[in-house]
Amino acid sequence: MTAYVPPMDLDEFRQAGHDLIDWIADYWERLEDLPVLSQVAPGDIRASLPASPPEAGEPWADIMADVDSLILPGVTHWQSPNFFAYFPANASPPSVLGELLSAGLGVQGMLWATSPACTELETHMLDWMIELCGLPDRFLSTGPGGGTIQDSASSGALVAILSARERVAGQWRMPELVAYTSEHAHSSLEKGVRIAGLFAEQIRVIPSDENHAMDPVKLREAMVADIVEDRRPFFVQATTGTTSTTALDPIEAIADVCKDFGAWLHVDGAFAGSAAVAPEYRFVNAGLQRADSYSFNPHKWLLTNFDCSLFYIADRGPMISALSVLPEYLRNEATEKGAVIDYRDWQISLGRRFRALKLWFVIRTHGAEGLANFVRSHVDMAQDFAERIGNHPSYEIVAPNPLSLVTFRHIGGDAENERIRDTINASGDAYLTHTKINDQVVLRVSIGSQHTEQRHVDAMYGLLDTLA
Amino acid sequence: MTAYVPPMDLDEFRQAGHDLIDWIADYWERLEDLPVLSQVAPGDIRASLPASPPEAGEPWADIMADVDSLILPGVTHWQSPNFFAYFPANASPPSVLGELLSAGLGVQGMLWATSPACTELETHMLDWMIELCGLPDRFLSTGPGGGTIQDSASSGALVAILSARERVAGQWRMPELVAYTSEHAHSSLEKGVRIAGLFAEQIRVIPSDENHAMDPVKLREAMVADIVEDRRPFFVQATTGTTSTTALDPIEAIADVCKDFGAWLHVDGAFAGSAAVAPEYRFVNAGLQRADSYSFNPHKWLLTNFDCSLFYIADRGPMISALSVLPEYLRNEATEKGAVIDYRDWQISLGRRFRALKLWFVIRTHGAEGLANFVRSHVDMAQDFAERIGNHPSYEIVAPNPLSLVTFRHIGGDAENERIRDTINASGDAYLTHTKINDQVVLRVSIGSQHTEQRHVDAMYGLLDTLA
Repeated sequence: MTAYVPPMDLDEFRQAGHDLIDWIADYWERLEDLPVLSQVAPGDIRASLPASPPEAGEPWADIMADVDSLILPGVTHWQSPNFFAYFPANASPPSVLGELLSAGLGVQGMLWATSPACTELETHMLDWMIELCGLPDRFLSTGPGGGTIQDSASSGALVAILSARERVAGQWRMPELVAYTSEHAHSSLEKGVRIAGLFAEQIRVIPSDENHAMDPVKLREAMVADIVEDRRPFFVQATTGTTSTTALDPIEAIADVCKDFGAWLHVDGAFAGSAAVAPEYRFVNAGLQRADSYSFNPHKWLLTNFDCSLFYIADRGPMISALSVLPEYLRNEATEKGAVIDYRDWQISLGRRFRALKLWFVIRTHGAEGLANFVRSHVDMAQDFAERIGNHPSYEIVAPNPLSLVTFRHIGGDAENERIRDTINASGDAYLTHTKINDQVVLRVSIGSQHTEQRHVDAMYGLLDTLA
Repeated sequence: MTAYVPPMDLDEFRQAGHDLIDWIADYWERLEDLPVLSQVAPGDIRASLPASPPEAGEPWADIMADVDSLILPGVTHWQSPNFFAYFPANASPPSVLGELLSAGLGVQGMLWATSPACTELETHMLDWMIELCGLPDRFLSTGPGGGTIQDSASSGALVAILSARERVAGQWRMPELVAYTSEHAHSSLEKGVRIAGLFAEQIRVIPSDENHAMDPVKLREAMVADIVEDRRPFFVQATTGTTSTTALDPIEAIADVCKDFGAWLHVDGAFAGSAAVAPEYRFVNAGLQRADSYSFNPHKWLLTNFDCSLFYIADRGPMISALSVLPEYLRNEATEKGAVIDYRDWQISLGRRFRALKLWFVIRTHGAEGLANFVRSHVDMAQDFAERIGNHPSYEIVAPNPLSLVTFRHIGGDAENERIRDTINASGDAYLTHTKINDQVVLRVSIGSQHTEQRHVDAMYGLLDTLA
């Protein structure tokens, strides 16, 4: 018999693990001093790595030394207090510990039977989050709906599209179906619709109003035009908190249109949904009791490391009908009796990790009050920043900024805005990204890192002021 | 301004992290004594949890106490040395450390630009794995193809289906397309085809030969029958190492058929593909140089915790054409110049974790030699077990067992086999699952945990002998 001798025994694992925990804590402590945006050129990292894998095992110390010298220069520091790009992606201490425990347990949650706690804690956390965010009761697992953790809002949108497609299957043919979204909706809608077998021509991009939110009158007009030509409006993706400006689509009015035409309403609150942990920001949920499905991402603004995207559905029937396949090797008594949830039927993949642990750790460590104060701190800093940048002679605010994203531009034109962005990003002192509004380049300052304090926002303002 | 005070500061994180590392090491040490299959009833775990989330934060010690008392009884121990169910899912020490580092860095790898090391280390590991497993050069990233890490082989199969659909788009309409697989292929094929907008009626399930492998003559007959009726064979999923019996479909002969009819050939080696780290088992790769795409899962048999499914493609063109959407807020110089890989175009989701770290840690810690010895140890134990169970007067082997899965049945009929399975699983001493072959219930003993030693296999044999 060939003996397998683990190259890292449990004593070594303890030592390496303690060291790595300290490495991460040290990393978080020194984040401020690292250039936020990696400054390497394409191919630099690969060129530093050996062409072939090692024949014999290598000591752990050598591997960690390479993490420092080879990998870290190629990392863009999403946890930096000076990270103002995209939307935040917080990896807080309790969430990292949850991810670690999930990896250590190494269970598969594809079926209730393959690890009951993995399914039941997830169901419980999704119900807790309904209370924490004041979400509609129709998403509670105790009714015909329920919630689950997806890897991303893209996957949630795809599951919603497939459920909507299933609901009209048999009545309408695929080429007759039409999906609707706003010009500022996330690209995941187009990707999901195409994955589901529709063509890009079956997507209507509805114009926005002056606040960059979907115009429900234009939505109705578009649906009427399609109906007249014997097409079937089957799906609408509305957004609460668009990527460009955190605009809030008017869900109630959109729901009225969806109801009249029998279309599925999916609401993408990927970023802004987390704001609802603070009761005074629950305006982001307005109309959500009318939605067929809803997604938001604690892995963006709620201290839980990627991946943790929550997906809620009001009626799980069409979803399970669309996604369930039960081969013999997965049959088991609990599933046959229908007494349990099998989350494999709520997602694209079969396998799944124990992701509820990190959400549980985050909620319990912070409590409802701590989570609310977390988002409040960012909104306060952002509103103050918006006021200052709006009063600056060279900058103008270009859209309403209801939460922690501020969108503005230098009055000198696109090239000037690109120069400012590129200069800041190349300095390593801070990182911000852009978007386009009304065909103009617009700068985005998104405040949401757990490490960001007022002084970091002040420094960002200082950079913008100097470069103006 | 509202101040956010983290409830767990970095000193507390260090202490909690060290304790959790020790908790995991202790867990792995005492795994043998825990009942493998969780013995809780549906609802038990939820009933033990508070109905509402806490208003204030709670101490870390209370949370970990609940992990022990409330969560652990609901866990089925996939890492147990007595876990012989499904296929293995090893969470080895270096892979858990890789997952921990990935969580601590908390970067997004959706674009090269959002963290270059995340993309380049992944590309490099996928190329290393080609050398480690003797995979065809056509999958190297330096040519028109390349590889990436997916969450699961289900997602890899879906990406393959979408790429194949893209390759014939414009020439054929969706309802004309037909996909083919064997009766023992994984359920992910049916799920993927349905997600892609085809109907279950557009899937042909090709009968197997006497070894439960796909019969290429029958595949050709099925394609001819479809062509005659103006349908278009567009996709074949072959399997190297089926879930039921690790049967190996004849890839060369299937590729000949695919070539004649212009169908995309995807090979699913989710479990058995890892065997190729040992040169003497590279028979699992026979014919792979003819495949358009290929998946295998280090998260099954190669010491890397879920999720880590490798997906290779010979021509990335149709995939990127099917999955690429580029909104303004993701535009950047590196992408525009075409100098880099943006893995968001290789997968369903936009966001992605730094999963290459754990694969890098596993390969470097073990070396090529250590990985080979790891799979050898299981094949050796399984072959010995198969010989003993085959010689047992009450059991018979029902299929060839080329690797580390042994499929057999008690000669007393289905009820007898179910009794044996249920008795063992209810005892908590070991966990095995079943499948059906020729409409008969068959027991599966899959040997692949990193903690499984000869004495555990002997104990499993003892249980089967006693219950016979």
